Parts: sequence; structure tokens; C-alpha cells
Amino acid sequence: MRPVAVVGIGKTPFGAFAGRDLRSLTNEAIGKCLKDAGAAAGIVEAFYLGNFAGPSFMGQNHLAPYVASGAGIQGVPCTRFEAACASSGSAFFHAWMAVASGLYDAALVAGVEKMTSQPTPKVTEILAAAGDINGEIRAGATFPALFAMIARRHMHQYGTKREHLAAVAVKNHANGARNPDAHLRKIVTMEQALAGKPVADPLTVFDCSLISDGAAAVLLAPLDQAPRYSSKAVRILGIAQTSDTLALDEKQDITTFHAVARAGEKAYRMAGLRAADIDFAELHDCFTIAEIVASEDLGFCAKGEGGPFAASGATALTGSKPVNTSGGLKSKGHPVGATGVAQICDVALQLRGEAGERQLRKHSLGLAQNLGGSGATCVVTILGAAA
Amino acid sequence: MRPVAVVGIGKTPFGAFAGRDLRSLTNEAIGKCLKDAGAAAGIVEAFYLGNFAGPSFMGQNHLAPYVASGAGIQGVPCTRFEAACASSGSAFFHAWMAVASGLYDAALVAGVEKMTSQPTPKVTEILAAAGDINGEIRAGATFPALFAMIARRHMHQYGTKREHLAAVAVKNHANGARNPDAHLRKIVTMEQALAGKPVADPLTVFDCSLISDGAAAVLLAPLDQAPRYSSKAVRILGIAQTSDTLALDEKQDITTFHAVARAGEKAYRMAGLRAADIDFAELHDCFTIAEIVASEDLGFCAKGEGGPFAASGATALTGSKPVNTSGGLKSKGHPVGATGVAQICDVALQLRGEAGERQLRKHSLGLAQNLGGSGATCVVTILGAAA
Repeated sequence: MRPVAVVGIGKTPFGAFAGRDLRSLTNEAIGKCLKDAGAAAGIVEAFYLGNFAGPSFMGQNHLAPYVASGAGIQGVPCTRFEAACASSGSAFFHAWMAVASGLYDAALVAGVEKMTSQPTPKVTEILAAAGDINGEIRAGATFPALFAMIARRHMHQYGTKREHLAAVAVKNHANGARNPDAHLRKIVTMEQALAGKPVADPLTVFDCSLISDGAAAVLLAPLDQAPRYSSKAVRILGIAQTSDTLALDEKQDITTFHAVARAGEKAYRMAGLRAADIDFAELHDCFTIAEIVASEDLGFCAKGEGGPFAASGATALTGSKPVNTSGGLKSKGHPVGATGVAQICDVALQLRGEAGERQLRKHSLGLAQNLGGSGATCVVTILGAAA
Repeated sequence: MRPVAVVGIGKTPFGAFAGRDLRSLTNEAIGKCLKDAGAAAGIVEAFYLGNFAGPSFMGQNHLAPYVASGAGIQGVPCTRFEAACASSGSAFFHAWMAVASGLYDAALVAGVEKMTSQPTPKVTEILAAAGDINGEIRAGATFPALFAMIARRHMHQYGTKREHLAAVAVKNHANGARNPDAHLRKIVTMEQALAGKPVADPLTVFDCSLISDGAAAVLLAPLDQAPRYSSKAVRILGIAQTSDTLALDEKQDITTFHAVARAGEKAYRMAGLRAADIDFAELHDCFTIAEIVASEDLGFCAKGEGGPFAASGATALTGSKPVNTSGGLKSKGHPVGATGVAQICDVALQLRGEAGERQLRKHSLGLAQNLGGSGATCVVTILGAAA
């Protein structure tokens, strides 16, 4: 396997965009990505699209050739990957594999979702299809309810408090307020976060990520061909995709995600790195508790310490291990199929020193963690500066 | 890239199975496949699932880890591929790539669809989402209508007759009647086929494939490891996935599918073979006209000669180039997400000499062609006996 680089990145802003369709959003991200790479659509040898529920949200299926032909990409393999909220993380993993193996020299990966076309109860129903519909969902669970159970159990087992959850929301909103592409650029105080309207106890609106529209794209090439593109390439040092049961009730311990821990181990091993080496991370904060659990499962802190770790300021922009400098799913937004590739873009921005008002001083090694469902799919990627 | 073998195959019968869900169908196919290979689920290093519209037909999304965990496969990459009716062909292509590149030694590929849970008008609507919903579908087209336009144009341009279309139906039903796993095991006469109830003129019910439930699975391994499994491995000699526009009105000539011709060229080149070398094929006869067009695009006969070629008996079991010995989508059935992998199973059965009443005398080189939408995705695979 040869080393692979991200040689171009592009994103739409995340938000609610009436009148935009899946192709229009994705083509904007692809256009920005190709421009960033200094490349034309004609060089793309394979197209990988992450999308969770375009057919349910928008009525359009068979999305990969649909989007690709709109961007001037035809005649090459164009494939849609679906892995719930890890759809574009999974697309990215498979594109990395194809370039690393030597099959392709230029693989384009995009992710997209348009969710605001449906009313919120319908969105909740579409998202619930990523759970076990014959089990937990039939029993009445929604995703906020599933993660509320995880939060409640984490509180019971480790003494995690609502203030710890709220600390994640406050931090991510503070970061997102500095991100011009974020969906909800709004500072939230601890008092506001604690007084949030309940969604599924103990989670409030401030613990839940946003319903958003958006797309993101990256171009992958072999590291030794990166100089052909812009000079801003970053390198994929480690990557893994893993899986677990969908249903929460089939897991032995719901305060940890086996798929996350295992993907982290594999990615660290491939990169020859440990958790302590990572400078910063984009973690999948679909709910505040998910960021806390991920920071434990990936070894950023000890098991059960994720709450105090977040509340200590360690994960803030000025902390020892900044998490979600983009604002995360909480503030940047969570167009589910776009999130995995958007995380890669946000890690790359930090590595390239282009993160603007949220730029970190230490930014040599970044990690992205993309989660599907309540821990059924996980993709972890470790990226570093190419030079 | 190292040579890759299909070391195990397994299929459910195709039909209408009330009370079966996607997991149950897929797990039956996986169980049969692993048994055929003499392998346990624990050896699987990655799982590739083709499924077109599980969320729309059954309400279940995030299907790959859902199905895999039911089959005892966890902790490894489990990914769903969606490419309309070429969904599991695309999954198969990506699994081949991963094994050929040396990343995995055992990749399991499955395809599944359960369509009969919905009334026919709803099925038609779900299938139409594989077309351009902002164009041809909004204008009122369904897939039978799109292929009817292709048939009408083929008739106009090349003199193709309704008798030629009917000959495809008569042949595929004759073959399917010999296949114990086929959905509709019924001999159809030329008179019956010509008197069929109109669906979209000139296509009648006898020109349209079936709405079916079913699943299929294959296990891939490097050729040099095939002896570890059963002694019945077959070898992947050539394979390609290509794409084109979704919308029929964006194509220059609707009597040919660019994606099919291009995938064929690539697969022949990889295999070092020509069309004339192929002993038999499973072609994607979603409609009778599709088999005629594919036989031209893949070079089995000259452009425009597909109709007379079929009517001549050349593609019958006793002909010079047997096509769809399984009965094809027309008689075997077409659970769309399962079809690509089922074609691979049916080619393997012939290569292994296990095709029972429909076994061919010449069965050394077989081809499978899996089509998504009206020619937007195509996967062509050429398989040969391993020894």
C-alpha cells in the first residue's frame, strides 16, 4: 500500500437552503475542491459519494452517477456508500483503499445530505431507520432517546453530570461562532445550555446536533503525486472502518462503543501513533454525550473521565487536546451524509494553517472520527502535514 | 493486483416471501455461501452489501452492519453500496478491488431486496427514484416507459420487431422453467408473449422483469488461497464498473448504453479476451429490449442485429452464445439489489458444471452484465474455471 494524500478540499456552508437539490449542493463542493487542488473534473478516475437518505429526504436514488454527471464526471466508477451518519466516512475509507492499492491516481470523494426539505417529525423518522426497526425503533426509540439512555447510564456508572454535557455544547458553539461556514454561529452560555428545552431527558436541544443541508468533497492522490496539485496537501497516516450491532440492547456496555475503540486502535497502529500524539480532533458529536464517550474510547482521557475532561477546558481551542474546532455537528451542523468528509476538510484546514479565527498553534497531527447510528459503524482517520 | 477467485456461492430462491425481512433473506444466502466455501463467518475480513431501496421498501436503513451482525460478522468494515439495479454488482466490484489489492484475504459480498411488501404502484414509484426525478420522472416516465422509448427507437432505427422482443421472453421463460430457484417457472409460447397485456407500448407484461424478494452471496479470496476452500472456485478474469448520465434525454443515442459498451471493453481488455471467446452470459434483461441492446453493446452481435440474433436461437441453451440460462430477470426474478451477485452465482454454477437441467456443454468462460437505471451504471464481470 502506498501513502495517500488529500490534495484538495471543498465545502458548501452548512445551513438550511431552500431550493437547492442534492446535485447542486454536491457540485458546489466538488467545484471548490477541484479548484483548491488546481485540477479538472476530467482527471477523476473514480467517484465515491456518501449519502444516507437522499431517497427518503428528496426522492432521488442512484445518486452517484446523478451527481457525477452534473459535475462533468462520466465513464468511471461512480458509487454511493450508505453507512448512516458515517456514509461519507465510509466512502472516504474505500477511496483511500483504492488509491493506496495503486488502482487509481485520482479519487474524488463527496458527501451530501439535504434534510430541511422535510418537517422535523419526518426527519426524526428518517433518521430512526438507521436503528433496528424491528427492535428498539418499533419499541418507540428515536436517536435522541437512544443517546439519552447512553447519557443516563454514563451518569449512573461514572458520575457524569449535566454540566459536563453542557460544557461540550458551550465549547462547540464557541468554536462554531468563529467558523464562517457553520450552521448556527451563536455563543451559548452554560446557563442557557442547562436551561435548554428537554428533548429526551437528560438531553436538551443544546445537547443535540442540527438538522442541516450541506455537502463536502476531497480529492485523493498518491503522496508522491501531491506536488502536481496545490502545495497544500495533507497525508493520511492511519485509517480504519469497523462495525458493531445496530441495536443498543444487543451491546454489552452502552457507555462505550466497541466500533470506535477498535477503529481507533487500528488507525493508531497503522499510523504508528498513540492518542497522546494527536494534536486535535474532530469527534462525532451528534449528541454531547457522543463526544464525551468518543474522547474516552479513543484514549484522549480515561474511561468515565470524558465529562470532567470536557469541563476542564482540555478540549477547548486553548486546551491541551482541542476537539471540534469547527464547531462540530452541534454548531457547524450535521447534514448526515456530508459529515464524514466535512470532518476531513476541517482537519485539513487546521493542518494547513487555514482555520482562521479558530486556528490552533499546535496543528501537526489531527484525527477525525465519524460515527454511524448508535455505534454500528465507525471510521477513524489520522491526518498529518504532508511535508 | 493479484488474481481473485469466487470460492463460495449461495442464494435464496427468488419469489414473494411474506414475513421474511432483509436480514433473514440475506443471512440465508450468506449461510449457504459460507457452507459452500467450507468457511466460518469469523474469517470474513470485510462485508460488502448491495441494496437499492431497503429504506423505501422496508423502512430499514444502515443495512450492512444490521445484516452482518445477524450473520455473526462484527468489528470489520461492513458497507452498503447503492447503484440502483447494479447495487450488488458495484459491491462485488469493490470487494474484488480490495482482495486484488492485497488488503483482504476474505471478502463477503451479498445483495438483497424485498419488494413484494409494497403494492405495485408504490414499487414503480420506488424504482423510478433511480431515474432523474427533476426531469424524466417529473415528466411522468416510469422505468417501463423509459425502456419502451428505447424499444420504439430501436425498432425505428434497426427494424427490430415485437417478435424479436417476444423471442427473448420465450427463451428466458424456457430457461427459468428449468431453474428450481426461479420466481416464475412457466413456459411462455410466442403466441402468449405477443398477446401480452400492454404495460408501456410496445412492451407487454412479458417484456418486463418480475417484482421479487431474494438475496445472493459470494465469498472472494485470492486465487492462490482458493484451495483452502471447496474445490469449486472460479476465477475473475476481467471486471469493470462504469457510469453515464441518469436521464435518457441526456444521452446522444438511446439505442446503445455507453456505460455497457465501455465496461465491456475494459473487462475484455483486463481478461485479454474478445466477445467471441465468451461461452455464455447472464445479461441484465430488466426488459426484453435491454437484453437485445446489451448483446449488441457487448459485441455478441453487430449493432442493430440484437433482435434477429435472439430470434435466431443463437442465445438459447442450444445456441452458439447462450444468454440468461438462469431464466434471467424475466423468469428467475429481479430483487434489484440481489441481481448483480445472483448473476455471478449463476455464471459460477455453469462454470462448475452444476447448472442441472440447464447445464451447457461449453461452459469455460462466462460473462455477467449488471445494469443500474437506464444505463447510468454498469458492471461487467468475466469469469472462468479456476484450474
